[in-house]
Amino acid sequence: MSKTETKIKILEAGAELIHRNGFNNTGLNDILKLAGVPKGSFYFYFNSKDDFGLALIDHYVEMMKDIHRKNGVDKVTEPVDRMFALFDSLISEMRENEYTKGCPIGNLVQEMSDLNEDFRAKLNSVFANVTDFIARCLEEGREQGVIKFEGDAGSMAGFIFNSYQGAMMRAKLVKNDSPFDDLKVNLDRLLY
Amino acid sequence: MSKTETKIKILEAGAELIHRNGFNNTGLNDILKLAGVPKGSFYFYFNSKDDFGLALIDHYVEMMKDIHRKNGVDKVTEPVDRMFALFDSLISEMRENEYTKGCPIGNLVQEMSDLNEDFRAKLNSVFANVTDFIARCLEEGREQGVIKFEGDAGSMAGFIFNSYQGAMMRAKLVKNDSPFDDLKVNLDRLLY
Repeated sequence: MSKTETKIKILEAGAELIHRNGFNNTGLNDILKLAGVPKGSFYFYFNSKDDFGLALIDHYVEMMKDIHRKNGVDKVTEPVDRMFALFDSLISEMRENEYTKGCPIGNLVQEMSDLNEDFRAKLNSVFANVTDFIARCLEEGREQGVIKFEGDAGSMAGFIFNSYQGAMMRAKLVKNDSPFDDLKVNLDRLLY
Repeated sequence: MSKTETKIKILEAGAELIHRNGFNNTGLNDILKLAGVPKGSFYFYFNSKDDFGLALIDHYVEMMKDIHRKNGVDKVTEPVDRMFALFDSLISEMRENEYTKGCPIGNLVQEMSDLNEDFRAKLNSVFANVTDFIARCLEEGREQGVIKFEGDAGSMAGFIFNSYQGAMMRAKLVKNDSPFDDLKVNLDRLLY
């Protein structure tokens, strides 16, 4: 196995464990064990656990893109439908996981924002990118007359994305769809 | 110092450290050190770290009630103003902490819901109580004609509370008030 392949194996194992147990609650040896890589060889592949964590954020972004592709989000052409397809993709993923784990990136935001400035900056740019995508969907939908709302699309996009994050957190707690249903009803009221 | 006083000292120290660093990322010895209690004496006061964690949830509930009292939430008589006073109290607390830490209970929801069923059940009942409080404010406000919305007040309350949790998470990331501002604009649209 090449160095790159092993690195990917470690990232995949880390992604799995950290998604459920958290970054600080996951030991390097557990990650290596799951990856089938010799104990103690972590630093051959990453400079530090933080270096690994930053690579993990990129890995999660690709993982989420794969999930959204699998769920056909990129095949939806109408902009507002595309935005809701993105959220439906997140929700169906949570449903498949029986409402455990939640958003892997949101979890890191909650856990790591105050503990590591490099993590915070990188997570912030990931969330900003998703918010920009939503803002473009909203802007296009408004121009086409599909939805209506006043003011800045970026502000509306921020509100919608943050509210989905809050709903995902609550779904981890109540273990059902109700937080998503409650949100969807109110987004319909706001946008249509 | 009595056993009860020492227990409270340990809870206060744990609350401080866990609010910033997370439950699993905080060692018992660090808590005892901050509390000024002899290393190794933790199990004299708590049966287990989980037993301590469950007591910590109650401690956080009381801590948040004290913050809301300090900020005058219980002096607000008009129901919708009372609801917004509760959120303003959370926001001003975050502002004082320079947008670090966030909601201590929300953080535990994110971190612990999938790791410990006792935590999940207890956190769920805490969030349900807050949602019930918000639902009563909304119901009274609607009856008095102060606000208007259709459908179940509990569903609207859930949406509002979850969205504040999402906004608090995002505020940890962007380190400013914008997530709260974006939410407030849309709640005004929905309720007035």
